[in-house]
Amino acid sequence: MSFNTFGRVFRFTTWGESHGPALGAVVDGCPPGLALTEEDIQPFLDKRRPGTSRFTTQRQEPDRVRILSGTFEGRTTGTPISLMIENVDQRSKDYSEVAKAYRPGHADYAYDAKYGFRDYRGGGRSSARETAARVAAGAVARLAIPEVRIRAWVEAIGGDSIDPANFDAAQIDANPFFCPDPAAAARWEGIVDAARKAGSSLGAVIACEAEGVPPGWGAPLYAKLDSELAAACMSINAVKGVEIGDGFAAAELPGEQNADAMRPGNDGRPRFLANHAGGIAGGISTGQPIRLRVAFKPTSSILTPVETITREGDAAEIMTRGRHDPCVGIRGAPVVEAMVALVLADQKLLHRAQCG
Amino acid sequence: MSFNTFGRVFRFTTWGESHGPALGAVVDGCPPGLALTEEDIQPFLDKRRPGTSRFTTQRQEPDRVRILSGTFEGRTTGTPISLMIENVDQRSKDYSEVAKAYRPGHADYAYDAKYGFRDYRGGGRSSARETAARVAAGAVARLAIPEVRIRAWVEAIGGDSIDPANFDAAQIDANPFFCPDPAAAARWEGIVDAARKAGSSLGAVIACEAEGVPPGWGAPLYAKLDSELAAACMSINAVKGVEIGDGFAAAELPGEQNADAMRPGNDGRPRFLANHAGGIAGGISTGQPIRLRVAFKPTSSILTPVETITREGDAAEIMTRGRHDPCVGIRGAPVVEAMVALVLADQKLLHRAQCG
Amino acid sequence: MSFNTFGRVFRFTTWGESHGPALGAVVDGCPPGLALTEEDIQPFLDKRRPGTSRFTTQRQEPDRVRILSGTFEGRTTGTPISLMIENVDQRSKDYSEVAKAYRPGHADYAYDAKYGFRDYRGGGRSSARETAARVAAGAVARLAIPEVRIRAWVEAIGGDSIDPANFDAAQIDANPFFCPDPAAAARWEGIVDAARKAGSSLGAVIACEAEGVPPGWGAPLYAKLDSELAAACMSINAVKGVEIGDGFAAAELPGEQNADAMRPGNDGRPRFLANHAGGIAGGISTGQPIRLRVAFKPTSSILTPVETITREGDAAEIMTRGRHDPCVGIRGAPVVEAMVALVLADQKLLHRAQCG
Amino acid sequence: MSFNTFGRVFRFTTWGESHGPALGAVVDGCPPGLALTEEDIQPFLDKRRPGTSRFTTQRQEPDRVRILSGTFEGRTTGTPISLMIENVDQRSKDYSEVAKAYRPGHADYAYDAKYGFRDYRGGGRSSARETAARVAAGAVARLAIPEVRIRAWVEAIGGDSIDPANFDAAQIDANPFFCPDPAAAARWEGIVDAARKAGSSLGAVIACEAEGVPPGWGAPLYAKLDSELAAACMSINAVKGVEIGDGFAAAELPGEQNADAMRPGNDGRPRFLANHAGGIAGGISTGQPIRLRVAFKPTSSILTPVETITREGDAAEIMTRGRHDPCVGIRGAPVVEAMVALVLADQKLLHRAQCG
Repeated sequence: MSFNTFGRVFRFTTWGESHGPALGAVVDGCPPGLALTEEDIQPFLDKRRPGTSRFTTQRQEPDRVRILSGTFEGRTTGTPISLMIENVDQRSKDYSEVAKAYRPGHADYAYDAKYGFRDYRGGGRSSARETAARVAAGAVARLAIPEVRIRAWVEAIGGDSIDPANFDAAQIDANPFFCPDPAAAARWEGIVDAARKAGSSLGAVIACEAEGVPPGWGAPLYAKLDSELAAACMSINAVKGVEIGDGFAAAELPGEQNADAMRPGNDGRPRFLANHAGGIAGGISTGQPIRLRVAFKPTSSILTPVETITREGDAAEIMTRGRHDPCVGIRGAPVVEAMVALVLADQKLLHRAQCG
Repeated sequence: MSFNTFGRVFRFTTWGESHGPALGAVVDGCPPGLALTEEDIQPFLDKRRPGTSRFTTQRQEPDRVRILSGTFEGRTTGTPISLMIENVDQRSKDYSEVAKAYRPGHADYAYDAKYGFRDYRGGGRSSARETAARVAAGAVARLAIPEVRIRAWVEAIGGDSIDPANFDAAQIDANPFFCPDPAAAARWEGIVDAARKAGSSLGAVIACEAEGVPPGWGAPLYAKLDSELAAACMSINAVKGVEIGDGFAAAELPGEQNADAMRPGNDGRPRFLANHAGGIAGGISTGQPIRLRVAFKPTSSILTPVETITREGDAAEIMTRGRHDPCVGIRGAPVVEAMVALVLADQKLLHRAQCG
Repeated sequence: MSFNTFGRVFRFTTWGESHGPALGAVVDGCPPGLALTEEDIQPFLDKRRPGTSRFTTQRQEPDRVRILSGTFEGRTTGTPISLMIENVDQRSKDYSEVAKAYRPGHADYAYDAKYGFRDYRGGGRSSARETAARVAAGAVARLAIPEVRIRAWVEAIGGDSIDPANFDAAQIDANPFFCPDPAAAARWEGIVDAARKAGSSLGAVIACEAEGVPPGWGAPLYAKLDSELAAACMSINAVKGVEIGDGFAAAELPGEQNADAMRPGNDGRPRFLANHAGGIAGGISTGQPIRLRVAFKPTSSILTPVETITREGDAAEIMTRGRHDPCVGIRGAPVVEAMVALVLADQKLLHRAQCG
Repeated sequence: MSFNTFGRVFRFTTWGESHGPALGAVVDGCPPGLALTEEDIQPFLDKRRPGTSRFTTQRQEPDRVRILSGTFEGRTTGTPISLMIENVDQRSKDYSEVAKAYRPGHADYAYDAKYGFRDYRGGGRSSARETAARVAAGAVARLAIPEVRIRAWVEAIGGDSIDPANFDAAQIDANPFFCPDPAAAARWEGIVDAARKAGSSLGAVIACEAEGVPPGWGAPLYAKLDSELAAACMSINAVKGVEIGDGFAAAELPGEQNADAMRPGNDGRPRFLANHAGGIAGGISTGQPIRLRVAFKPTSSILTPVETITREGDAAEIMTRGRHDPCVGIRGAPVVEAMVALVLADQKLLHRAQCG
């Protein structure tokens, strides 16, 4: 079943295909009175925009957003906010090969199995272009949670990780990799170039931190903050793993190390001595920074031939020509930020609903 | 906001606290005409039941389920199925310490921060006892997906993993650890005993596989199978990480290795040469086994004193006396199975809704 | 599809059949800290309880409610509140006739057509006994909206209406008809007795008013207050019509008469000169009393033989022996009140979510 | 809370204001493979389009729909279908009066009370222009239920009803009133002209019938077909009453008259001797035509001065200049049809989900 709406009270719905005329999002449930113009959204789209370095796809999309509803005199009215981004660089090409055979790692076979046919142009609805709509919606969500600062970065590419000792937040926007470690950024130039030239691709790990979330957002049990964040991040194309706080590493710790001990703080809140839990206990925020990590698989579009079958079930080989990100995870950083903002805006409103 | 319902068309709602009179689930949207009696549910509850070995809590709960509605003459009628399990061993004890100070790693502080107060007896709603209701609901879900076989096991305890070469499915139910590797099971006896005696606790990794899911279940984009499974598993107490297929390891593979190549199969479906994707592409099942891994943090209730604060904000130390699982992840295996069954039943019905 | 949950953030789920062991409701999303014991719920159940006069069914049900979860030390905790009512007077009788043939006006044929079979004992899930669970849930909802006073009454039975000039709120609970007009109540004794003796049954119109709703609750567009109230009331057994404010009569007024003119009030709010709109404009409350009317069809269970068919499709005649309300609408008054309370609690929380 | 999505599995979300650049709908959950082009939608928009006779508003809107996503090679793909209609005739006028004072009967005061301010141009989001988006979505829904024929007509204007004896379906589209009775249509010319000239306005009653709905669609209890239809119709601007089948008249019938007796039919289904229930029993379709009636209040925009207050709370008088429908209910006929189609498509899919 197609479900293209996310959220419970602060909700958004996305639509659009890679090669259709446009894509967009409808944001519903946004509080009224927030200052919002296209200039509040565009910078986030620009961060995610393709074609800005040789390390991303060369498709040239300005990704200019238009607000079609939901604001009046520069402020949100409380009614649905329709955001539209036109596709301009749907390069006319020959898709006959993709139409005929299934690209392994892609949604091609699964879509055909489900729907009986598919829009094969650029992956159709399963294209990562859809994430532009999320980023636009996420920019609106940020306005609803001004108390929160969200920051995502690339932590590893192709298994090569940053050195936490080198972490410098100021570096994140200073290189094409959203990399907080200049040494790693330098290495990644070589790694990504090599993969691209080899007709290969790379995966990545994105880390994200949200500071300023007060204690009390979240919910027992099926809207736990961990659960909502996991759902949000796992809904992004190419994501196959999510960790909250220490994640899988927590499964290796003894209980006394994993427990985040508390001391009296000076603002009436506890001062935590550690944050293994990623700022969430029992599904509810503790006031510590929310921390999570997201695994992106390597781009499935590669220039290396892979065994596959045709729609008719015959053996074939396929390689995906065209313009692709050698590492789709890189541009995942602003998308993860957007999804985290959308979840937190929803949870803020939900908390206010129940607890006043 | 409290959200205790999960699912879109095959839905369930759970209720109940650790020390209340009972707990239960209401399953709504179940297809009519399925043979269902309490005997179809009880075996799954028995697998999860506490007090069956020295490696779990010694709380003695028979966990007998009663079906209060939704069946007639032994078959589901299509109306809501109410399942109730009475609590019988809520040992009267002194909770004054837990009432006064927050147990690090537990939901205590977060619940108080959200709701202003909490039912502190045995963790109240945040207790893992709630998972009994999920297991009962999951047993009903299995009846709706007879084509699927779901099997979970413990893959690692405290960082000590099974040897995949030793994997023997028949062993899973032959030891108190749901462990498919007899050598690992033998080691874990010592590891868990040692942790228990030291007043410590351990985390665990659960793996789960669902065979028989046909191609086509799942949905773009915000109900992707990956996303639904992640939400379901992350909603379980103590879970902090979820991987679909290779998960984080996929982020280290080059694209040509990660793509699951296809050859013609002999049933009209592709024969996949690998399953890095965990049986899901583009959020939709491919017909391969669904594979996922779930990280449970170590039990937060430990007999080792930890620094904390009182409700009034004063410094304190706390250690959690009482009956606890030294490794709550062990009994997580039947819970993960239940959540996977519930997600798949929902997705089967959703697929049928849209695609007939 | 079975959907037994209602509400968006203040939600409830009901379960249970007429002749099962029990029925109940799970209320989720209730604000924490509200004083709640069984004594807060019981009076509302007692109003709806059968067997209290000769004008209702003679089934003897004490309808004692038990709170199984969601409170601690007499206050709501913010977690799901499970309410259970045991059925005690499921008289053992011979249902073979009802099992075999369809009672016209009942859900018998429709349930069989949908589900393939049905629990025919007392109507199973389609029995008006389900409304006991709504009344229990509604009592909880009232606690969340202490600013609102809700009052329903019977306005007409079998086409015989009260005289608005005789309206006396104090009379509503002083007769077995929830009738605010003593003269009408006296007439209705005769009318209902006559119908009962004739083996016939009667319909009724219930009116309901909610005072104290502040301006601003409700929502454009698909959760308009009118729409939510209509859905809530139409979900009650036997209801076939809903009017907000003047309803169908508004369709006969010229615009200048229908517009509720305003003058300055002395509390900063407008003073309205009329309330044709029933307190709702654009789907949002105006601060005037919410007014609505609900039409209940006559009880379908009658002692008069009616033409029908058997499950096998053969011609038959059926008359419904057993204990039935001669006018099911009478006991609809507390049910309408409950549904209105549930909608308003939900809308209060939703308003708070979006508008702080 | 703003909720602009309707439906459970076949869902749509609308957006847009009267005087914004555009309005639209996103339809999600539509089955794949249905032939769909803009030409399948346009005729329904043309029926609802303003400016086609002197009996509707003189605003000139071509209401040309564009499909922006969700189709490929003229067929639905199963992914969200984005529909957009540009506003072209937002006449620049002076809104200072409407900005300053509240129009009685309009949403002006309620929106301000809820959101703190409002887009006052042409009613903003509360304008009946929003219903164009519903009609577009409804045209898509019709494709999902080819077995159903839906037909709405105007039954009364300003209290003047058609004569059922004159009913001629072929007449409905032959006059500007969707009136099946030529004599009534002739009278209504005079009535509507008179109201328009007097600066007044009129209400209307719309009747709707859906033939071809098989037995079994619908659901106990909170998604009863009656309830879903009532919610859908009550969400339309200006609607204040809904009846299913006989509605309020059923409340006046004795039980033996109201029961729809059955005889054996020749297709294995019962032949019903009457249809008081409007084709729905127990919330589930019986296979008879679905019948409902909807009351539209008179247009609130009138050229007659009415007492009101300003935003500052001062006494004022207001009359609404500009272009308005003298009877907004007339153009409600295609909107009611659309909403009924949307509900039925949803229920068809839900039935398929649960009952295969």
